[in-house]
Amino acid sequence: MTQNSAATSPVTLLGLGAMGTALARAWLAAGHPLTVWNRTPARAEALAAEGAKAADSAAAAVAASGLVVVCLLDDDSVGAALDGVDLTGKDLVNLTTTTPARARARAAWAEERGARYLDGGIMAVPPMIGVPEAGGYVFYSGSRELFELHRAALAVPVGTRYVGEDAGFAALHDVALLSAMYGMFAGVAHAFALIRREDIDPVAFAPLLVDWLAAMAQGAHGTAAQLRSGDYTENVVSNLAMQVAGTPTFLATAEQQGVSPELLQPYFALMRRRLEAGSGEEDLTGVVDLLLADR
Amino acid sequence: MTQNSAATSPVTLLGLGAMGTALARAWLAAGHPLTVWNRTPARAEALAAEGAKAADSAAAAVAASGLVVVCLLDDDSVGAALDGVDLTGKDLVNLTTTTPARARARAAWAEERGARYLDGGIMAVPPMIGVPEAGGYVFYSGSRELFELHRAALAVPVGTRYVGEDAGFAALHDVALLSAMYGMFAGVAHAFALIRREDIDPVAFAPLLVDWLAAMAQGAHGTAAQLRSGDYTENVVSNLAMQVAGTPTFLATAEQQGVSPELLQPYFALMRRRLEAGSGEEDLTGVVDLLLADR
Ligand SMILES: NC(=O)c1ccc[n+]([C@@H]2O[C@H](COP(=O)([O-])OP(=O)(O)OC[C@H]3O[C@@H](n4cnc5c(N)ncnc54)[C@H](OP(=O)(O)O)[C@@H]3O)[C@@H](O)[C@H]2O)c1
Ligand SMILES: NC(=O)c1ccc[n+]([C@@H]2O[C@H](COP(=O)([O-])OP(=O)(O)OC[C@H]3O[C@@H](n4cnc5c(N)ncnc54)[C@H](OP(=O)(O)O)[C@@H]3O)[C@@H](O)[C@H]2O)c1
Repeated sequence: MTQNSAATSPVTLLGLGAMGTALARAWLAAGHPLTVWNRTPARAEALAAEGAKAADSAAAAVAASGLVVVCLLDDDSVGAALDGVDLTGKDLVNLTTTTPARARARAAWAEERGARYLDGGIMAVPPMIGVPEAGGYVFYSGSRELFELHRAALAVPVGTRYVGEDAGFAALHDVALLSAMYGMFAGVAHAFALIRREDIDPVAFAPLLVDWLAAMAQGAHGTAAQLRSGDYTENVVSNLAMQVAGTPTFLATAEQQGVSPELLQPYFALMRRRLEAGSGEEDLTGVVDLLLADR
Repeated sequence: MTQNSAATSPVTLLGLGAMGTALARAWLAAGHPLTVWNRTPARAEALAAEGAKAADSAAAAVAASGLVVVCLLDDDSVGAALDGVDLTGKDLVNLTTTTPARARARAAWAEERGARYLDGGIMAVPPMIGVPEAGGYVFYSGSRELFELHRAALAVPVGTRYVGEDAGFAALHDVALLSAMYGMFAGVAHAFALIRREDIDPVAFAPLLVDWLAAMAQGAHGTAAQLRSGDYTENVVSNLAMQVAGTPTFLATAEQQGVSPELLQPYFALMRRRLEAGSGEEDLTGVVDLLLADR
């Protein structure tokens, strides 16, 4: 236990893609004895020169440390890489991106094989690994005991946030945040398209957009409070009726600027559906319920 | 000139809805002689008791001050309220939300009638008016001379940002930022829907979402630089091919959680279209061009 929680406990890492390589360098820099394995052995060579031990097989790599971190392409690659490998007594930390259901299934699979399991969702890109100021982190869920035990080693490459015993929660948090981000990116693309053919410098426009989005993102706190209380009329500033009344201006502007409304329309359609259901005095929160299949 | 630019120059305000009333109170509080008019006269009564002069007609209100601020429901109401009113020599500042094309037409209309014209797009809600810490502001475009002349009076209720001589630019900036916001709200709704049926407290989840979106909004600076240079492979961290490869995980997670993918799919479809056009090494910026009708 003391050995594992020490700052220089041994780590095994399976997967030396862009992300795995960045993780490996961070552990090496912090003085952790590191054993690495990659399906294509060439990718381990540079790391071996930097002090990592390159194992000949996934089985040999797993045997080398109590803590085994996996960062492969997808869940199928995890199954392929660990097929037939003895995991008895191992602490398996899987940083491979996947869905909540597959993370839960992988946790059950690992436990059947005598391993403790922790799932991770990486909220960072490789250049942010080993750079604490960059603010990246990993969502962890699954065995809390395993998380606490290896917390120090796990925190070396990037920050950690434990989100629950359910092994699917790390993936769920990861996917939820990234999904929200793509929605925001869609809005950003629409905004840049609107100004694209005008004499407006996008580089001067960007700070206005960034500041506005950061300020408006705060609205998620109110949405969360309404979802918890169930009262969507709580602290409403601009109600749904007012906001739906404003949508023709956005669509007319898109048309004037020659911009397809395809990225705005689906949300506006849900706003209208909720309004037509008699929720004009509410906030926008009811859209969340409309997205849920059987409501 | 000196009179107009003084901190207590007279102001006429047409329109005492939620926003107009908030603006009126801010000018009164700052000591500006204020003449108000509203189609429904009852809404002027409280303000008259607070020191405003309530005019009997829009024409009388316009005659009372050199600076005439209009904040009505929409552009049609502006036309209706000012129909037949003498605007000769007046400085008309129109804070009514509209489209760029209608703002430009209204500017021409005002200039034909001998007025100088400035258009405004209000980036604030009424509770933010008169509260500088709240960070609200108004985009202004049109006559720069008029903006500079009345800058001090205009800055009383809320911050000011001048964005160009083109009278349509204030509306365009306004609509662009709000459109981007609705995209972000769509993403936020999807994210909350994903966790809705799980044992995850939305109030604990919201700060993670808010911080993530604020951090990822910074990506707009890179998008802007790429749009300016025309090179969408400049400083790419995760290229389009990698990001498209990740989308099945988001769609599978939505399906597992019983969440309709309708808010994510249109953006993912454009990402795929751009990838299929051979732009896998690019950033996501090419989506902007796909939104523009004739490209
Ligand atoms: N890069 C990022 O920005 C980022 C951000 C957050 C999360 N992540 C996640 O981190 C994980 C790794 O990403 P990455 O960027 O390192 O990916 P990558 O550069 O594409 O590397 C993929 C890795 O998976 C291995 N692999 C693929 N199929 C395999 C199989 N069937 N059996 C064994 N190994 C297999 C590859 O081995 P070979 O070298 O032999 O091909 C390589 O080590 C992914 O789940 C990704 O979603 C990445
Ligand atoms: N409220 C916000 O959060 C907000 C935020 C940003 C921008 N804005 C913009 O600010 C403007 C005013 O908004 P608001 O919230 O004050 O709206 P509001 O509360 O609905 O008030 C509408 C105003 O327009 C007047 N009006 C409507 N039709 C008219 C007509 N045909 N002729 C003359 N007057 C007419 C109304 O007069 P009556 O009293 O006689 O009906 C009232 O003074 C809008 O363009 C809005 O988009 C509002």
